[in-house]
Amino acid sequence: MTTLYDVAAIGNAIVDVIAPASDQFLDDQGLVKGSMMLIDDARAIGLYDAMPPAEEMSGGSAGNTIAGVASLGGRGAFIGKVAKDPLGDVYAHDMQAIGAVFSGERLVGGAATGRSLINVTPDGERTMCTYLGAAAELGPADVDPAVIEAAKIVYLEGYLFDPLEARRAFAKATGLARASSRLIALSLSDSFVVERHRQALLGFIDAEVDIVFANETEITALFQVADFDAAVKAVRGRAKLAAITRGAMGSTIVSGDDIHHIDAFPAEKVVDTTGAGDQYAAGFLFALAQGRSLVHCGRLGSLAATEVIAHYGPRPQVSLRDLALSHGL
Amino acid sequence: MTTLYDVAAIGNAIVDVIAPASDQFLDDQGLVKGSMMLIDDARAIGLYDAMPPAEEMSGGSAGNTIAGVASLGGRGAFIGKVAKDPLGDVYAHDMQAIGAVFSGERLVGGAATGRSLINVTPDGERTMCTYLGAAAELGPADVDPAVIEAAKIVYLEGYLFDPLEARRAFAKATGLARASSRLIALSLSDSFVVERHRQALLGFIDAEVDIVFANETEITALFQVADFDAAVKAVRGRAKLAAITRGAMGSTIVSGDDIHHIDAFPAEKVVDTTGAGDQYAAGFLFALAQGRSLVHCGRLGSLAATEVIAHYGPRPQVSLRDLALSHGL
Repeated sequence: MTTLYDVAAIGNAIVDVIAPASDQFLDDQGLVKGSMMLIDDARAIGLYDAMPPAEEMSGGSAGNTIAGVASLGGRGAFIGKVAKDPLGDVYAHDMQAIGAVFSGERLVGGAATGRSLINVTPDGERTMCTYLGAAAELGPADVDPAVIEAAKIVYLEGYLFDPLEARRAFAKATGLARASSRLIALSLSDSFVVERHRQALLGFIDAEVDIVFANETEITALFQVADFDAAVKAVRGRAKLAAITRGAMGSTIVSGDDIHHIDAFPAEKVVDTTGAGDQYAAGFLFALAQGRSLVHCGRLGSLAATEVIAHYGPRPQVSLRDLALSHGL
Repeated sequence: MTTLYDVAAIGNAIVDVIAPASDQFLDDQGLVKGSMMLIDDARAIGLYDAMPPAEEMSGGSAGNTIAGVASLGGRGAFIGKVAKDPLGDVYAHDMQAIGAVFSGERLVGGAATGRSLINVTPDGERTMCTYLGAAAELGPADVDPAVIEAAKIVYLEGYLFDPLEARRAFAKATGLARASSRLIALSLSDSFVVERHRQALLGFIDAEVDIVFANETEITALFQVADFDAAVKAVRGRAKLAAITRGAMGSTIVSGDDIHHIDAFPAEKVVDTTGAGDQYAAGFLFALAQGRSLVHCGRLGSLAATEVIAHYGPRPQVSLRDLALSHGL
């Protein structure tokens, strides 16, 4: 079967609500800097009330990655669930407007489109409190076999290990992907996700996953090891391929016995780190889908991450394709 | 009666949907650069479909002014109409979060919260297509007498001359303001508004208005004169006070026989001119409410306008109070 997509992703379809915050504000609200916390409706209202005026932009980890793939000139599809409400319209528009396919039935008469309240401290770190809303209703019925079967790589975000129906959607997608010999990639998403679902994640990686994306905190949490080198040893042989991001220290790609270290691109400024990992995955997966070397994949991922941390918001604000060309990638 | 507010404003409560655009895009869509056009639901859908991914932020001319007044440390109240939907929640949140009072019943079971599709060209000019939605339902019942009577200055945006019920809301507000000896300020908003409602605006200015805000295009359109000097002559004696903005050329304040020219603050960059006039009015009205000189009013207006054009979005992103203090204002 011909592939229509470089990458098809499944994730929480979330609108980001982004505002500046002080460290004191995080303390007052009992938030752990840099983490993602799931919150219910009541907590969302209380926290939002305490936040200053905000900007709203489409977000969601895997959705951001697909937006990045499209910005690189790739063909992307995203499976996620929003409500039939104005923020759902925003989400669908932004995905289609960047040239990606948005797949998934709108939720009618239930929860509103999901939101992530993102507080960005002066150091550029983002702390996220996510009210899933309609995204929590994502289930197997939302996974269109035609989308999965037509993608070179199927990308799954670890956040979806929280809702049971979403995990069933994963199972359906991975079954379909296997049957069509598609690559399966998984992002660990967040160290708290790893803590909540360590055994399930390890089992899933062993059974299904070709490529694991993680940052240093997540990968050490997964294997409960003390340092990065021990995590690299642990992941070797576990997944065929792992790409581990380390912020300003770049990234490390583990492929069997081969280890490639990729330098970060110099960041002129760090305004908001939201989306850094998502855009790294976008660059990496797009290059991989084009059959590029692993080093090339890592460099393109680093470049895409550097663009997104220089401004507010989790998605590229310039054409990543043009940016890549100007850097010879 | 003691005043609770420096400024109370009535305007269209609108969420801005902001995206970059080329001049070619404006041509293709038949849009006049720098203008505001009212569009219906069908046109809004078509135009939005053609736009790239966007950011959403609270906007609306008079609402932006009240946000500016609050950012300056002033006490502001805003009367406007949004729907009981997620973008209405965003609007109410952003107004309250900056320390202003948001007054007005939510619209239930009718149109959605209004949106302005704003295309920003590389020269920083913004071209707006506004779908009023719930804002079109603003009427006299939304004008709380207690809010008007408690404000030193009542500020009205010319955009509200379009819907008849909103004009009736104006009449109620101006009657209440007169009865409590409050100052009444009017922004002409847009040259097309002036073309549509010239006689009504002139009659309203003669009968009710103490302070007129306009840019050069709007004031020359109002009096159908060829140049700025002729417009200054025409406005003299018509309104007690007029503040006319001229972009990089600064502003001119006409007060009886006195004319003050105020230089613009040097703009380091012009990213998006959305909100420039609104923030000029914010600085001017806040200073006037504090009993400052007209020159001081104009300088504070210019400073607030310079802040807002240096970034995307129509409202200040730093504390205007701190900015003013750092400039000795």
